Amino acid sequence: MPEIHAARRAQAQPKIAENGADAALITVPANVRYLTGLVSSNAAVLLPADGPAVLATDSRYAEAAVRDCPDVELLVERQIEPALAKLAAERGWRRLGFEAQDVTVERRDVLASLDDGPELMPIGRVVEELRMVKDEAEIDLLARACAITSEAFASVLAEVRPGRTERELAILLERTMVDLGAEAPAFDTIVASGHNGAIPHHSPGGRPFAAGDLITIDCGARFAGYHADMTRTVALGEPAGWQREIYELVAAAQRAGVAAAVPGAELAVVDATSRDMIAAAGHAEHFQHGLGHGVGLEVHEAPMIAAKRTGTLLDRVPVTVEPGIYLPGRGGVRIEDTLVVRAGTPAAEMLTTTTKDLLVL
Amino acid sequence: MPEIHAARRAQAQPKIAENGADAALITVPANVRYLTGLVSSNAAVLLPADGPAVLATDSRYAEAAVRDCPDVELLVERQIEPALAKLAAERGWRRLGFEAQDVTVERRDVLASLDDGPELMPIGRVVEELRMVKDEAEIDLLARACAITSEAFASVLAEVRPGRTERELAILLERTMVDLGAEAPAFDTIVASGHNGAIPHHSPGGRPFAAGDLITIDCGARFAGYHADMTRTVALGEPAGWQREIYELVAAAQRAGVAAAVPGAELAVVDATSRDMIAAAGHAEHFQHGLGHGVGLEVHEAPMIAAKRTGTLLDRVPVTVEPGIYLPGRGGVRIEDTLVVRAGTPAAEMLTTTTKDLLVL
Repeated sequence: MPEIHAARRAQAQPKIAENGADAALITVPANVRYLTGLVSSNAAVLLPADGPAVLATDSRYAEAAVRDCPDVELLVERQIEPALAKLAAERGWRRLGFEAQDVTVERRDVLASLDDGPELMPIGRVVEELRMVKDEAEIDLLARACAITSEAFASVLAEVRPGRTERELAILLERTMVDLGAEAPAFDTIVASGHNGAIPHHSPGGRPFAAGDLITIDCGARFAGYHADMTRTVALGEPAGWQREIYELVAAAQRAGVAAAVPGAELAVVDATSRDMIAAAGHAEHFQHGLGHGVGLEVHEAPMIAAKRTGTLLDRVPVTVEPGIYLPGRGGVRIEDTLVVRAGTPAAEMLTTTTKDLLVL
Repeated sequence: MPEIHAARRAQAQPKIAENGADAALITVPANVRYLTGLVSSNAAVLLPADGPAVLATDSRYAEAAVRDCPDVELLVERQIEPALAKLAAERGWRRLGFEAQDVTVERRDVLASLDDGPELMPIGRVVEELRMVKDEAEIDLLARACAITSEAFASVLAEVRPGRTERELAILLERTMVDLGAEAPAFDTIVASGHNGAIPHHSPGGRPFAAGDLITIDCGARFAGYHADMTRTVALGEPAGWQREIYELVAAAQRAGVAAAVPGAELAVVDATSRDMIAAAGHAEHFQHGLGHGVGLEVHEAPMIAAKRTGTLLDRVPVTVEPGIYLPGRGGVRIEDTLVVRAGTPAAEMLTTTTKDLLVL
């Protein structure tokens, strides 16, 4: 659908002008995809503040670019960034914005050393800011990614039993997502059992599940480029009092966080809504990561819902809400949904639909 | 084995001094792993030209760092790069080298804006150059990755039949590698059939195999961080004359390239050995990528074997040799091995052992 990409480029162009640039060199892969539709590990867009864009990629992706991006001028080059910078200068776009969050010092130095090259200036996160608010077609793709995730989760639950290992479950879950239509897992699946549950980003290993474990499973499918992200913690055998207690606390904090995720809510306030409940129960130091993040063409994207973030949530912004409690040496609980902040509805649109009641397996 | 990492750090230190720095901030993940053993997506090493190193990571990886890197000072911080830069200044290491191939302009600007921060200078690819020559323990891990790759390839061949799709075969091959002990595929598997074989980096899709296809399969297992890389092209049904012709040409060019990969050989000469044979047969424009690359903790690392590269091969350097011929609209052939350049042996040590005779399935 080239017209969608053309509309997105038209939205970005005034921001380029506002930043004082004549054109922007867009290199973040998700931004290139967003503006052109091209999926490539080596492509860049030269987007002037006014007028048509130029897409550059190497010969490996030339055929895909011709097919997927018929409405942009195409440059097939080995060294795409210098080629576009030279072209900018030739076209009189002397002030060239670049994405300083992506371009390395080495790559910038190459551009700065070009004869008659443009003047370089950081352009900020112009495209990331546009990407934050999704259109309904994007939300549909994300919803499909989340539906695959929930379905895969349900189908592997029977395999959560004593003796199975974290890694076995992670592999099974990832394969099931692909079998259900995911193009790939959205990120490396986390399965953290027993004391490993105290490590928020535990890499699943050979530890076999045992009765008495809490098991945290953080997974997501990628569908048409969009990333689902969901976490559930389940109990193997009847949970101990402390396990049920932290579970119910995290579940309540998660519900409160979801309820607070409305258009206009300040990011820091949404974070505090969950965090304060956890802190009030004496677990402030056991919840050290942010409450959530945007999801879309990247698994972590704007907005970040965290204590020191400024800014507010907007209509049609998909985010995660994922409080946790991690008790070193003992275990942990995290509960995470992907949902869409919506104006005019009583609550956010929940995309991950697996129950948040504590499942005792 | 902390002593291995300590020895590697000791090897890097004189290079830091030679570059005129008091210390280096190492941020390339594979370099951090090489120097400390820590596997992390957010870690950095402050390595002085003389004296003990400091490893920084965030709380997610603190436990792993304590376990895997008992011999280095550990700093657990959210913002690891500013923390290490400040520490460098405090310790009187005023000239701080950094990896300009990795650090973005944005991250560099954060370091440059620190009060009383160190003076920043690009340090070059000091650690990448050390990583090029492997020790025998590394070669053993790479050999295991290659053995898994060859075994998985053999076990999926029976599934290369009419009606099966590229994507089905790619998924099956990746799953088989994991089932055989790979921690993950080393990269996204390429399966390019029929006319798709003309696209060197084709993304496997829904095209069903058909009699008369050449099918190029580029795959590799990752084992303990080391990346195998192997490509074979097979024929489905009796190959046409042109198919057999380009196959035999690529196979001969590949043999010649492997034979040329000896210690002391110039990279550009090794590339030319294969390339000239393909060009002499009139296919110069049908082989546009480099002949090969180093493999190790990254799937593409130094040295690059390509036309304009300077430098020579050394003893104990694992590389790929992978010529190809790509005929737009028709199809292609690529044959690739991972092998170790060895001094004093009649030939390179071949790590990928799948036959290079044309398999007719």
